[in-house]
Amino acid sequence: MKDMTNLDAFEVGFDIPAKPGMDEADIQTPCLVLDLDALERNIRKMGDYAKAHDMRHRVHGKMHKSVDVAKLQERLGGAVGVCCQKVSEAEVFVRGGIRDVLVSNQVRDPAKIDRLARLPKLGSRIIVCVDDLDNVAELSAAAVKHGTQIEVFVEIDCGAGRCGVTTTPEVVEIAKAVEAAPNLKFAGIQAYQGAMQHLDSYEARKEKLDIAIAMVKDAVDGLKAVGITCELVSGGGTGSYYFESNSGVYNELQCGSYAFMDADYGRILDKDGNRIDQGEWENAFFILTSVMSHAKPDKAIVDAGLKAQSVDSGLPVVFGRDDVEYVKCSDEHGVVMDPKGVLKVNDKLRLVPGHCDPTANVHDWYVGVRNGKVECVWPVSARGRAY
Amino acid sequence: MKDMTNLDAFEVGFDIPAKPGMDEADIQTPCLVLDLDALERNIRKMGDYAKAHDMRHRVHGKMHKSVDVAKLQERLGGAVGVCCQKVSEAEVFVRGGIRDVLVSNQVRDPAKIDRLARLPKLGSRIIVCVDDLDNVAELSAAAVKHGTQIEVFVEIDCGAGRCGVTTTPEVVEIAKAVEAAPNLKFAGIQAYQGAMQHLDSYEARKEKLDIAIAMVKDAVDGLKAVGITCELVSGGGTGSYYFESNSGVYNELQCGSYAFMDADYGRILDKDGNRIDQGEWENAFFILTSVMSHAKPDKAIVDAGLKAQSVDSGLPVVFGRDDVEYVKCSDEHGVVMDPKGVLKVNDKLRLVPGHCDPTANVHDWYVGVRNGKVECVWPVSARGRAY
Repeated sequence: MKDMTNLDAFEVGFDIPAKPGMDEADIQTPCLVLDLDALERNIRKMGDYAKAHDMRHRVHGKMHKSVDVAKLQERLGGAVGVCCQKVSEAEVFVRGGIRDVLVSNQVRDPAKIDRLARLPKLGSRIIVCVDDLDNVAELSAAAVKHGTQIEVFVEIDCGAGRCGVTTTPEVVEIAKAVEAAPNLKFAGIQAYQGAMQHLDSYEARKEKLDIAIAMVKDAVDGLKAVGITCELVSGGGTGSYYFESNSGVYNELQCGSYAFMDADYGRILDKDGNRIDQGEWENAFFILTSVMSHAKPDKAIVDAGLKAQSVDSGLPVVFGRDDVEYVKCSDEHGVVMDPKGVLKVNDKLRLVPGHCDPTANVHDWYVGVRNGKVECVWPVSARGRAY
Repeated sequence: MKDMTNLDAFEVGFDIPAKPGMDEADIQTPCLVLDLDALERNIRKMGDYAKAHDMRHRVHGKMHKSVDVAKLQERLGGAVGVCCQKVSEAEVFVRGGIRDVLVSNQVRDPAKIDRLARLPKLGSRIIVCVDDLDNVAELSAAAVKHGTQIEVFVEIDCGAGRCGVTTTPEVVEIAKAVEAAPNLKFAGIQAYQGAMQHLDSYEARKEKLDIAIAMVKDAVDGLKAVGITCELVSGGGTGSYYFESNSGVYNELQCGSYAFMDADYGRILDKDGNRIDQGEWENAFFILTSVMSHAKPDKAIVDAGLKAQSVDSGLPVVFGRDDVEYVKCSDEHGVVMDPKGVLKVNDKLRLVPGHCDPTANVHDWYVGVRNGKVECVWPVSARGRAY
């Protein structure tokens, strides 16, 4: 983890890409830039939506891995806490002061279970997902050992095809075991349909979510039939939150990407057939890159390649420009076609990355800008926290 | 950068994935594992080859970003120093004690040029690539300002289609300007054919390299005609080093991936039609991952997804197993098809990543193992050093 005790000694370009007060033009590239105005508008908008629909919003901290962004989401967007995917991320958020943390994932390694069971001692509510009866006993034993309480969501695989059980009897069986296990508390259901979030068509997404909602309703009813109440039914992403909010069964959202946006999410369409990055959400998250060679007249070579982003969901898009195009990515270089030769060496471009989550995870810092000035430099607090 | 002053306080799982002395079975996943025996054999083998062919070997430090690996390459493989792609990487290697460092890339940002010009004060030879006359004056002014000497390679684009000039007159013009510029020294030619390294067929690679070698010979002759000698002619990768070594014009190699190997490089074929990871080089670099859910009988979900690797060159391959297959990758999960149900929760697998360079760059640590024990935990010293 960064030594934050001596921040002033950090050298721009070696340790950090920028310092507060600096002109945006002087930022060292490639690095992540947050448009703070756009970020704040996105956060307020989703917060207002959740409030209007009487939904809790547990923001997905795995997207940004940042304590600072999570706290902004609490302050401006009324977020109730975070979810994250790894015990090491939960440790970062708890130590950073987030008081309600869900590990929206299975934790099976004995050492990880032990670490998870210690976390409530730091004063936060800790919830974890379970999809296997054996795991109930493992979690219970660790919580007893540390004298803590771990809360449990039973995870339903409602279409992602990864972790999670797929039938109501399995949900009921695990929930009953949780209720019977010392130092565990059944807190509800995790049902995030991840696979549908990126389907372009609103109707195609709705179709998938209708199936998920039916599964979740059946499980909630099945639990009720044996006297078990779900305090929380949690799920929903940037491509689906309106479905969960109007389902009558979910009461907690888990959106992440809405705050930053990316090129892949931006392409999906809303109810009216408009791209969601053309009105619903703003691009607030960019890779700032510089032209470093223009030895060929129609090609600018920029300094952001595979080590400045993840291209799993496609190449980045040059923000606000249709005269140039990022067409190729190698380890440290990007090739930007510049047919009219409008770019010069040291020109800076903002790239909208294909996929925000794994792109944020490559960087150590967010540089927050407003009105052409660097306002803040925030660590990607849980960067690399994969274990 | 990691605070290394208090390493013993690092907590396994939160700060680091393992500690020296630990059993391999107790390593926290996902993390990078180096098979130290295989790594050392690869390093010695390439070192012996370079020596036998009277070639300098400037290892590509951008691949591993590790001072520890670079020093092992100096000690066991006779490496003369490193090349790297970023000023921030050069700063890490110089501060780490590497005495001959080439930034095999263009440096154009004024602040970066200033940092580069300060580096020779720390006692290392510093070389940088140039493909633009304007850059000569910029570098010279910075070196004069700091009272240092920067050495310069003129970069020839011999097929990668990125940075570099493409004609001998351009090479000669820039070299002359370097020779005339205060505090700069012309040191030779950079000519790395990156685009051909991953062509499967040996003959296809040879064809591309023959073109590159012809370009480089022409440039060296053109320089000689105006009285300029190339001390170094540098290039060559894991898919081509035998061509450069036998070219009669190159005298320095820049191989990187040979030391670690990856799935994409492993698939290319040697002269005899054998995969290069089946004899020429050994897989020494793995992502260690654990099964974290097996709720479906034929599918194991593992804990290494997009945040533990780069999939730009394809999905990882499960090492030493043909009964299971990694078929899908999301942010924190991998789906491993397990048709016979042989895997159990907490089983560990070694994955050979598609592409070693950007995969190493996602992690903070290398866990070095030998005979089932953790022998060392090395920082990925220049991780995230992209600026």
